[in-house]
Amino acid sequence: MEFELIATDPETGARAGLLHTAHGTIETPIFMPVGTVGSVKAVMQEQLKQDVKAQIILGNTYHLYLRPGTEILEKAGGLHKFNGWDKPILTDSGGYQVFSLSANRKLKEEGALFQSHIDGSRHLFTPESVMDIQRSIGADIVMAFDECTPYPCEYNDAKKSMEMTHRWLARCFQRFNETEPKYGYEQSLFPIVQGSTYKDLRIQSAEFAASMEADGNAIGGLSVGEPEQDMYEMCELVTGILPKTKPRYLMGVGTPWNILECIGLGVDMFDCVMPTRNGRNGMLFTTEGVINIKNKRWADDFSPIDAGLDGGSSNTYTKAYLRHLFAAQEILGLQLASLQNLSFYLHLVKEARKHIIAGDYGKWRREQMEIVKRRL
Amino acid sequence: MEFELIATDPETGARAGLLHTAHGTIETPIFMPVGTVGSVKAVMQEQLKQDVKAQIILGNTYHLYLRPGTEILEKAGGLHKFNGWDKPILTDSGGYQVFSLSANRKLKEEGALFQSHIDGSRHLFTPESVMDIQRSIGADIVMAFDECTPYPCEYNDAKKSMEMTHRWLARCFQRFNETEPKYGYEQSLFPIVQGSTYKDLRIQSAEFAASMEADGNAIGGLSVGEPEQDMYEMCELVTGILPKTKPRYLMGVGTPWNILECIGLGVDMFDCVMPTRNGRNGMLFTTEGVINIKNKRWADDFSPIDAGLDGGSSNTYTKAYLRHLFAAQEILGLQLASLQNLSFYLHLVKEARKHIIAGDYGKWRREQMEIVKRRL
Ligand SMILES: [Zn+2]
Ligand SMILES: [Zn+2]
Repeated sequence: MEFELIATDPETGARAGLLHTAHGTIETPIFMPVGTVGSVKAVMQEQLKQDVKAQIILGNTYHLYLRPGTEILEKAGGLHKFNGWDKPILTDSGGYQVFSLSANRKLKEEGALFQSHIDGSRHLFTPESVMDIQRSIGADIVMAFDECTPYPCEYNDAKKSMEMTHRWLARCFQRFNETEPKYGYEQSLFPIVQGSTYKDLRIQSAEFAASMEADGNAIGGLSVGEPEQDMYEMCELVTGILPKTKPRYLMGVGTPWNILECIGLGVDMFDCVMPTRNGRNGMLFTTEGVINIKNKRWADDFSPIDAGLDGGSSNTYTKAYLRHLFAAQEILGLQLASLQNLSFYLHLVKEARKHIIAGDYGKWRREQMEIVKRRL
Repeated sequence: MEFELIATDPETGARAGLLHTAHGTIETPIFMPVGTVGSVKAVMQEQLKQDVKAQIILGNTYHLYLRPGTEILEKAGGLHKFNGWDKPILTDSGGYQVFSLSANRKLKEEGALFQSHIDGSRHLFTPESVMDIQRSIGADIVMAFDECTPYPCEYNDAKKSMEMTHRWLARCFQRFNETEPKYGYEQSLFPIVQGSTYKDLRIQSAEFAASMEADGNAIGGLSVGEPEQDMYEMCELVTGILPKTKPRYLMGVGTPWNILECIGLGVDMFDCVMPTRNGRNGMLFTTEGVINIKNKRWADDFSPIDAGLDGGSSNTYTKAYLRHLFAAQEILGLQLASLQNLSFYLHLVKEARKHIIAGDYGKWRREQMEIVKRRL
């Protein structure tokens, strides 16, 4: 994997780049739709490409390991073959889900014991097993197995957790380097910076991650309940340490304004369930602001869902129709809202990229901040 | 509206035709996907056109009247404008839903009093109001307000019900002829033949419907629980009486084999919720037979969902992936299953039409009957 830095914004730390993977090139900054079990909820793969213009999607190792399982994924020839998505894929390490979703988890130096949230079956994730699982899934970018601390977190707990995450990280790289990709194309392993909201821990963790000299680096443990200002502060601190020549991925972030802010701090990659999850609840992110499409005021608004987006269903279906679909609890409502929000997120990062290259990202962002936060 | 009869099968009574409407020409025999509230569940309008190759969809007057309501539909400029489907639409009359879905319904000579299944609000449907509502919806083909008898039904009840349906039919035509379409294009009203499973009533009802000299005729009150043989018998009796020069629509039917059988009896139009509803439950109709995609045997079957269909998602997604989506309860599973079943239904009637024109429908149907009923 190779990362080309194309431009850096003079006012902010925003960067535009090209990330070359075995499944194609990604233009950064980029937002990655979340495809938990290998499907971005309510969106077809061809719509992801043509309407949303997604360049890379994310899969969850925890979910894919439980269903369909590595045996089926290997028989299929990896996740790309299994779900028919032939562009880049990134998988997380399962750490976050083990701690947020599974039952009776027990943390040991060896790894994490947990029970499946589906059938209660018992499983052990270790840094080694998680590398093996991600070899079987076959994502282009795979993540180190880490512990994601909750917020708030006592200093000593955060420190202990980070230290274990670092020991696990070393084991991840060892296993990863000892094993070969299974499907004939290269995979890259990203370390994850932890350290909660403690500056000294974040610095230490960023330095440790950087020392791995990986193809890219991730920032975890943010957007877990801390004030936005803390998130930005930690993010800035960490991007200041991570190598400039490698892509930086801020995990699980966030709102459109979070993304605009963190692009300015030098982040290149984002993922979040917000556009799809909030979309399914009727919250639309648009080029004019935030809409609650269930609101009665849209009942006779026959303007397009979002005229500011080029083509696609956001242009051809109306707000009144989408509002009706939500009122009648039609599945098509979930589909159109998901398409709108993902299209908007991809549009936003594409516009950001244009302005980074043009050198006026700072000015553009100040205008956009007003708009994307506006409630219509 | 004009109906051109292109070919009649020499062995069976099957017909191939062209039905010209204000929103385009429909090749018959045809299957019409059901779009209850103006959305075919889990399928986007462009997919209906491009993947499914639907030529006409159905809307339910009862549902559209309750939500979004005629006021919104009129403001939008009719259902075509509201939902963005610019090809032909047919609306049923709401009779069936009033009797199957609403609460506290009371039948009077004037019409049907009922309570909404959504909010309990009280409404009165009369032949006149139902014509007015369908003028507001603006479907190309609208249906007379009728009472659909349950099965079994005592002879005297069936007779009384049919007689009221006939009196309502006369009132429907009177109101329809006194009013103008609202959106500048022609609408056609079809009478509905009732009479339960009683031959003399069906004959009487078919003759009464035929006397209306409408642009087309519908057969109602079948596929409501009676043995298949009774349905076929009633259908044959009625198509023998209805004018040959007008399209015949068998309402709410049915399985692929029901459709093949009834095409042979001279039916030109069909609708049914079965492909979408059963699809959402994991039952797939394919060119190789019927599949329960939830079954474990598909877990590692990486063949296309249905290689016998041209292009579309049925060709690009695998059975194993679709099975996984159902296991993980992903919305995309409902989307793909709905697309498969509707694509198959439309494929089936298209093939039937080819063989009617080629003059070997009887032979082709005997082969197909084996296949479409087969459980894989
Ligand atoms: Zn998130
Ligand atoms: Zn049916």
